[in-house]
Amino acid sequence: MSRARTTREGLARLSVNQETVRQLSLAELARGAAELGIGGVGLWREPVRAHGPAAAARLMRRHGLAVTSLCRGGFFTAREPAARRAALDDNRAALDEAAELGTGVLVLVPGGLPEGERDLAAARERVADALAELVPAARERGVRLALEPLHPMYAADRCVVSTLGQALDLAGRFPAEEVGVVVDAYHLWWDERVPRQLARAGAQHRIALLQLADWVTPLPAGVLLGRGQLGDGAIDLRAFRAWTEAAGYRGPVEVEIFNPALWERDGTQVLRETAARYLRHVL
Amino acid sequence: MSRARTTREGLARLSVNQETVRQLSLAELARGAAELGIGGVGLWREPVRAHGPAAAARLMRRHGLAVTSLCRGGFFTAREPAARRAALDDNRAALDEAAELGTGVLVLVPGGLPEGERDLAAARERVADALAELVPAARERGVRLALEPLHPMYAADRCVVSTLGQALDLAGRFPAEEVGVVVDAYHLWWDERVPRQLARAGAQHRIALLQLADWVTPLPAGVLLGRGQLGDGAIDLRAFRAWTEAAGYRGPVEVEIFNPALWERDGTQVLRETAARYLRHVL
Repeated sequence: MSRARTTREGLARLSVNQETVRQLSLAELARGAAELGIGGVGLWREPVRAHGPAAAARLMRRHGLAVTSLCRGGFFTAREPAARRAALDDNRAALDEAAELGTGVLVLVPGGLPEGERDLAAARERVADALAELVPAARERGVRLALEPLHPMYAADRCVVSTLGQALDLAGRFPAEEVGVVVDAYHLWWDERVPRQLARAGAQHRIALLQLADWVTPLPAGVLLGRGQLGDGAIDLRAFRAWTEAAGYRGPVEVEIFNPALWERDGTQVLRETAARYLRHVL
Repeated sequence: MSRARTTREGLARLSVNQETVRQLSLAELARGAAELGIGGVGLWREPVRAHGPAAAARLMRRHGLAVTSLCRGGFFTAREPAARRAALDDNRAALDEAAELGTGVLVLVPGGLPEGERDLAAARERVADALAELVPAARERGVRLALEPLHPMYAADRCVVSTLGQALDLAGRFPAEEVGVVVDAYHLWWDERVPRQLARAGAQHRIALLQLADWVTPLPAGVLLGRGQLGDGAIDLRAFRAWTEAAGYRGPVEVEIFNPALWERDGTQVLRETAARYLRHVL
């Protein structure tokens, strides 16, 4: 097999999450990704709504790109009924958008502890309650709810689900067709139980998406925008590919890096760098 | 029992780690803590060395204060032989200082991944190797090596031991008299396995020290100096006291808060506030 052909086949599985190159418009992202032979993109609700979900779907299809995920729903840990109802309504809207966009995966970040609360177990239970309410809508639309465990540093303010094990415990209460998990190396790399849990996730067909970013320090204030380009940090990214493949996952590998230093650069150049890093550090 | 008596007995178990009020000299800390009826202090190597360990020991004894820990040894994950030897020598010096200071607990922060390495399992194994080398020295000096699992957000640059379970797995290879664990709520609060692991730790007599600080967001850049005063954050601190007591732990409750906002205030006032918060949110 020629080197060029290997490269092209390798990139077919790569998806670039829009936030990695947020300086690009949807059209620029589609053209840039397609030109490099990247297979898919992960999109965010705000820009998709601005473009129109159906038009965004057509744009990606025209460039031969899969939409590997819509980010994101979730944030449904509120206890107060009105806030809870509003969150569920918003998640139903996100399911509509995902269906119109033609993606089978709605990424869910469950949300943190409501102000003044300290009961993580109760908040996690409310995540299960929210999933139960959303499952019928997900089934109708043919979109999978993909629960994402976030790094424990977000447990208070963004995501009370901190490990793959917790996410699988929650997802396991529902059919795998409707509720899966997102495996993001950035959030899970420190946890020695991950290989075992990925085997469990694979056996249950729960892996909805593999996402990658590297772990670099020092973390910035707020710890949201400090993700590293593939290969720049501490994570054994290749191991995540190997573990998920061993678990039977053959889906997209989506690179999602939140980093202002990447946003300041030429977006097409960042796309090219990301593809090269993927070939070098993941494949 | 009178309210005043309850308060005084309650504070006897409280220890204030020096870094909580680093604006105070050792003499000011000793006087301030003793006046409030606080039972102990946790000290750091640099100021202890500057004061002289024996003189520091006399000062605390004169004020009726226990020295509940010396912070800290560890940082022995280097692979390179010279760096590794230097780290072990430094830890032996820390054991000497702890013995002279009259504390039975040397807190160990194991260290992160060496530059360019990505193998967490191998680095954790080097922690076990270092413990094996230090155990005889600890035994001779009557000082316990107290392995501290740090929050997973420090896994790359400070501590490859991220959970109480990992710390217990490592400590369990050595006699409990010589190797224990530090249970710091700030690092462990997000982990639902902690109550179970504390029961295991208690059954093995591994709990060398309970430390408390609260979790507040947003985290500052570098994520080192963002700990909250007791009661200001997301952690159920009382649960940590209850779990450790259920596990048979009757030792000190050391409050260790790294927060520049506390350092800017009058240190004696911060001591008083800490004692009041302890009575309200922990007892």
